[in-house]
Amino acid sequence: MIDLVQRLLSGDKRAISRAISLVEDDDASGWEIMKGIHPHSGRAHIIGVTGPPGVGKSTLVDALAGEYRKAGKTVGIVAIDPTSPFTGGALLGDRIRMQRASLDPGVFVRSLATRGKGGGVSAATGSTAKILDASGKEVVIIETAGAGQSEVEIMRHAHSVIVTLAPGLGDDIQAIKAGILEIADVIVVNKADLEGAARTAKDLESALELRSRGPWQPPVLLTVARDGRGVGELREELDEHLAYLKSGPGWSERQALAALAEVQDIVARRLVREVGGSDSWEEAAPQVKAVAGREKDPYTAADELIQQYIRRIRSQDPAGRE
Amino acid sequence: MIDLVQRLLSGDKRAISRAISLVEDDDASGWEIMKGIHPHSGRAHIIGVTGPPGVGKSTLVDALAGEYRKAGKTVGIVAIDPTSPFTGGALLGDRIRMQRASLDPGVFVRSLATRGKGGGVSAATGSTAKILDASGKEVVIIETAGAGQSEVEIMRHAHSVIVTLAPGLGDDIQAIKAGILEIADVIVVNKADLEGAARTAKDLESALELRSRGPWQPPVLLTVARDGRGVGELREELDEHLAYLKSGPGWSERQALAALAEVQDIVARRLVREVGGSDSWEEAAPQVKAVAGREKDPYTAADELIQQYIRRIRSQDPAGRE
Repeated sequence: MIDLVQRLLSGDKRAISRAISLVEDDDASGWEIMKGIHPHSGRAHIIGVTGPPGVGKSTLVDALAGEYRKAGKTVGIVAIDPTSPFTGGALLGDRIRMQRASLDPGVFVRSLATRGKGGGVSAATGSTAKILDASGKEVVIIETAGAGQSEVEIMRHAHSVIVTLAPGLGDDIQAIKAGILEIADVIVVNKADLEGAARTAKDLESALELRSRGPWQPPVLLTVARDGRGVGELREELDEHLAYLKSGPGWSERQALAALAEVQDIVARRLVREVGGSDSWEEAAPQVKAVAGREKDPYTAADELIQQYIRRIRSQDPAGRE
Repeated sequence: MIDLVQRLLSGDKRAISRAISLVEDDDASGWEIMKGIHPHSGRAHIIGVTGPPGVGKSTLVDALAGEYRKAGKTVGIVAIDPTSPFTGGALLGDRIRMQRASLDPGVFVRSLATRGKGGGVSAATGSTAKILDASGKEVVIIETAGAGQSEVEIMRHAHSVIVTLAPGLGDDIQAIKAGILEIADVIVVNKADLEGAARTAKDLESALELRSRGPWQPPVLLTVARDGRGVGELREELDEHLAYLKSGPGWSERQALAALAEVQDIVARRLVREVGGSDSWEEAAPQVKAVAGREKDPYTAADELIQQYIRRIRSQDPAGRE
């Protein structure tokens, strides 16, 4: 395991892949890796790209990675696929996205399937970004499809968040804007060669006016990721945002929030397993089965399981009583 | 509190509203309400409606509620707004959606903001659906915007899941289909008066062929929710799905999974608070601060916090030792 961490830290692609897989499985060897790399992380600029389907996020990420490569920086990409929690596979993602990685040795791309629990996805994304960071990638881009709560959670791992929209996405865009604009550091209207792009940008600027003004006012940029228009300016804005964070309390604030989320995630995963028993129905605690049968309410069941756990701890008291 | 529960169970609208607010706050009085109503829940048909932005989900939910009303059934609607975890308000949702409620006393509509943690949204949705169920609503519709992991989580609270799509949503639809089709019991192509609707339906049917065939094969329906076309057929399909669930193991399976998720959610929320300390950075444990400073890795910090908690429990041993 120490060898794997060493190879990972030196940037070895196979070691990076292997480490991510072990961490995705969330077992003891994954934890060892995360412990090993922690002191070597915290150097990359972590950029999140989110927004609703159909706005061209993948193409934008591709073009942005290209801009960073032109500037001589190495890039890691974590692409989150909204695949099934049941089959667990990243159906289309790997096939399409891995082509990028093979074209340029300075770019490492990894697709993560959104299997398992909501919190699990966010945690796995954070760990993967951290592995890429520790492996020496100077820029790590997290790309996630969708604009719901899980995307907001995932974006907590990023230093700079790009919210991507496009002209003509229908009325729902209003509701999305209300939620997701809050987390934007830079807003991009992609497909800016389509009709209505200028109006969309103007709408967004008005929506931003409603937001409480902090010292950083998110710019609204127009891009055509397909042919690269505007993507150079986007990279410049991101550099500026990074400089802004590092010149004030922003950088340490984001590190602090990331640490809090990370520790809480680990505590929850470990204890739910300890206390609540198995994830499978067959092995579920009798209390859980009583809830399904309406003989017991879930709060009483949770209380009983926690009390059981507490009794178990006390009976294992190292001082030997009981 | 017992009085509030009694009024809620008799269908009193103000009591329902008040109860949902208390439960959203996730404090002790909310827990008491959930305990009180649990034996009275489990009767409604809970229907989930999800799909990407722009497909007309709100209009569809409106039309579907109308169909159930025509059939003489009372309806509750839980609309999840992708609003900010920072401001916490359901900005547009309440204003727009509450109009429906005011038109028909047999329909109760509640918007939930997606503030706070990912798991919290799913838990709050489940609790709200359960309150509406216990209050006597025969059909409860959960409407969520987006097609990411959190939507899949939220849909675990539903007996019948409608995945809504529309013609011409761009390439990203492929990726969405891969993930979200797995949880569909009924698939709707809304805006079926637009060009390409028949092709979209055909694509979906082909995608379903790839899926392992269970005893229930999800139908693909065409609707124009705006003028109600196809929505009657949708209601019939939902009735059929409900009959299918109740005639086999499906109904108890879904109750079982809901119970498991509910108990685990409660255990996690209670223990993370106990063990990991505050959600606010100012009051964070020193271990968390050490993680931010890279002096400690998060796994070691989580271990230490759990050990600290265990020591605290042992020192509070009711037998009085130590």
